[in-house]
Amino acid sequence: MAGSAKDRLAGEVAEIVGGPQVLTEPDLMAGYLVDWTGRWRGPARFVARPATTEEVAGVVAACARHHTPLIPQGGNTGLVGGGVPGPDRASGPSARPDPGLPVVLSLGRLEVVEPIDTAARQVTVGAGVTLGRLQLAAEQAGLAFGVDLTARDTATIGGMVATNAGGVHVLRYGPMRAQVVGVEAVLAGGQVISRLTGLEKDNVGYDLSGLLVGSEGTLGVVTRARLRLITRPRARVTALLGLSGTAAAVDLLAQLDLPSLTAAEIFYADGVERVGHHTGLAPPFPTPSPAYLLLECAGPTDPTDELADALDSAGPVHDTAVATDSTSRAGLWAYRERHAETVAALAGAGAPHKLDVSVPVAHLAEFEARVRGLIQQVHPGAIAVLWGHVGDGNLHVNVVGPDPNDEAVDDAVLRLAASLGGSISAEHGIGRAKLPWLALVRSQAELAALQAVKTALDPARLLNPGVLLPG
Amino acid sequence: MAGSAKDRLAGEVAEIVGGPQVLTEPDLMAGYLVDWTGRWRGPARFVARPATTEEVAGVVAACARHHTPLIPQGGNTGLVGGGVPGPDRASGPSARPDPGLPVVLSLGRLEVVEPIDTAARQVTVGAGVTLGRLQLAAEQAGLAFGVDLTARDTATIGGMVATNAGGVHVLRYGPMRAQVVGVEAVLAGGQVISRLTGLEKDNVGYDLSGLLVGSEGTLGVVTRARLRLITRPRARVTALLGLSGTAAAVDLLAQLDLPSLTAAEIFYADGVERVGHHTGLAPPFPTPSPAYLLLECAGPTDPTDELADALDSAGPVHDTAVATDSTSRAGLWAYRERHAETVAALAGAGAPHKLDVSVPVAHLAEFEARVRGLIQQVHPGAIAVLWGHVGDGNLHVNVVGPDPNDEAVDDAVLRLAASLGGSISAEHGIGRAKLPWLALVRSQAELAALQAVKTALDPARLLNPGVLLPG
Repeated sequence: MAGSAKDRLAGEVAEIVGGPQVLTEPDLMAGYLVDWTGRWRGPARFVARPATTEEVAGVVAACARHHTPLIPQGGNTGLVGGGVPGPDRASGPSARPDPGLPVVLSLGRLEVVEPIDTAARQVTVGAGVTLGRLQLAAEQAGLAFGVDLTARDTATIGGMVATNAGGVHVLRYGPMRAQVVGVEAVLAGGQVISRLTGLEKDNVGYDLSGLLVGSEGTLGVVTRARLRLITRPRARVTALLGLSGTAAAVDLLAQLDLPSLTAAEIFYADGVERVGHHTGLAPPFPTPSPAYLLLECAGPTDPTDELADALDSAGPVHDTAVATDSTSRAGLWAYRERHAETVAALAGAGAPHKLDVSVPVAHLAEFEARVRGLIQQVHPGAIAVLWGHVGDGNLHVNVVGPDPNDEAVDDAVLRLAASLGGSISAEHGIGRAKLPWLALVRSQAELAALQAVKTALDPARLLNPGVLLPG
Repeated sequence: MAGSAKDRLAGEVAEIVGGPQVLTEPDLMAGYLVDWTGRWRGPARFVARPATTEEVAGVVAACARHHTPLIPQGGNTGLVGGGVPGPDRASGPSARPDPGLPVVLSLGRLEVVEPIDTAARQVTVGAGVTLGRLQLAAEQAGLAFGVDLTARDTATIGGMVATNAGGVHVLRYGPMRAQVVGVEAVLAGGQVISRLTGLEKDNVGYDLSGLLVGSEGTLGVVTRARLRLITRPRARVTALLGLSGTAAAVDLLAQLDLPSLTAAEIFYADGVERVGHHTGLAPPFPTPSPAYLLLECAGPTDPTDELADALDSAGPVHDTAVATDSTSRAGLWAYRERHAETVAALAGAGAPHKLDVSVPVAHLAEFEARVRGLIQQVHPGAIAVLWGHVGDGNLHVNVVGPDPNDEAVDDAVLRLAASLGGSISAEHGIGRAKLPWLALVRSQAELAALQAVKTALDPARLLNPGVLLPG
């Protein structure tokens, strides 16, 4: 806390969390002030790292007393700038702490995984627990967690709740919202609300827990979550199919009536080629296919025959690779999961444009076909790398080429999605990145209702200002 | 509309919905002013029966202009007085319409079932569509709806959304909340908000649809809902087991690891005996058992062997009856479903006390054992009839004996549930009935947050005043 002796708020917060957990030095703060894509960054007054709900409540109350905005931050794996401070409004560095700067509230130290209730198949975890730790704990209890995503070893449960994270299993188990029985959270004034009893049926008043899910830290700071666990699948099979395109993938998926299906990921020839260049992975098949569909089935009994039978009676497939052991499964998943780092490498020092959209599944092929042309039209020479979750109508459109602050491509892509009845954010949220396009997909009445809810729970607008809602 | 010539609001509403759809005569209004148990009743200025979302919006806007409260009403099958006017504050009948009286807004004419989207497995239905009609429409499309309850031919989707209805399949498919992709609703000023696009992933702003689910008509009037449908199970098996008590039922259920389980209903020897007296149904087994567990499994393949194997390796069972055809299945379900009418008959002209509570499943046996003694202690000679959903820790405690307005038994039962970490309302909601006990299960901070959300969306407090929240 050296260098902040003049900052009374920092002093009060240090009393609550301990001096070493208040970071004021630029080099100590640096990692908290920029998102991992490098696209979003801004200054903060200091970083506070509370370890308990009580400490969080104390910090939030102190900030409220000092009218100081707060940026809640989890694993900082978000892609829309919702977990880092906004760009500085001040003209330059100053020797004195700017009272208008926000405090970053890092939840990483709330990392308790409480004992798993195997009878109820539920667990309560702290906001700072990573998805990977939760998955491991569930596995050790003979259970599993219904959400999985590539950033599993960094993304934290608090952030995943706050953003209603999706991932690869939504078509089977739903997004975070479907896993949350209830949350404990600190409201804008420092009040703690708690719904950790684990009751599956509790129709008493508005669903505040559900309201906090996906609220991106603007209505309250999630400190703990009570989560559902699922039966751990005893057997699993993964298949990578080479297909003629998005339409073939959509058609094939519609024909498969597989209750055991847990994932249906799509990616494309150009993406696989770039992944190969970047990672050294050999191509999955001797001849490239325009599109690849990665299917995974899991259940209490071996789903291999079920998947094979379903594929036999479905549409034409160019190539098929099947994995039934964990090593070969990881090999197939690598083609999908290493897309993100490949795009990051392509972008080099700049940040790729990461546009996460959904459209009705019936329009997915049309969207994919049109969006590639549109990107070239708006920014000739741009590299577009697409992948996504076919079953959810969700494509991640990654664009490398335009300057990170040149939003012409973003505008075109988001308008196309909206024009097809889709969403400008399937699973990443609005954050700072999508704010300019909110009105494409929400009416004035809806935006007014969102603002009213925000004002009701955070009248001073101190929680994550500039995120999810303007102002 | 005869007799209301002096009521300017009624005139305006008649312009919107048509004169015959504004009911002002006492005999025409009567059915809308009392709930089906007879416990809750109150006067209204008139009843309006709009047929479209636009008409609902017009009526709501007119009432807002006239500062007149509105009581949204669906199939009027609620059990907590949330869909009928509150008791009259006036001293007696008057020749002139009392401007303080609410308008009942009956949604029964919003009865369109839109064409089912079989690819997305979704359907959009009007608020006035009964559960039974939705089930039939889904069935005709080769699909099914995930919620079922005894009042299926009267309960409407709007009311079921507004109360987050539960029913017998929650343990498999979740409550209404889990079926709702999005809703269309009219807010307190008459603004329409709509989320009927069917996008499964749409992380854009707060989940207003989810907030409206379970809000009991106090935040908006649900006019349409976009609902998920499920694969229609091709085969089904039902088993009625005679058991030694609640603990045995809980233990047995915990031992069954049956992914195909769709229902686990519990009821008791005294209830079955009373059902027999009232309905003439023969006892299920020659020798009564203290408790009965009704299990149903359904899936793509015949689950009969799976259930039999699971029961073989589970705990001791006194008696077992298995039904694999629809007639014998209905016969087994009758023991469960005819409890409600039996209790209504026992209560005669009075209304039974219907206390719907949940506790952690681990405490269900303790709750059941203690609640019976407690009821006798508070009101010696009272008849207590219990049934419920074991998997959800949800018991319906029905009490006949105390005057409907004598709430001593209610108080004791709800306090017992709360003391065991349970809820004062598992699936019926708060309505008017449970309001006095809200603070047993929600903190001051939580109640303040609920009030803030209410004020944000209905600042004049015109939507269902006196329901879910005080004031």
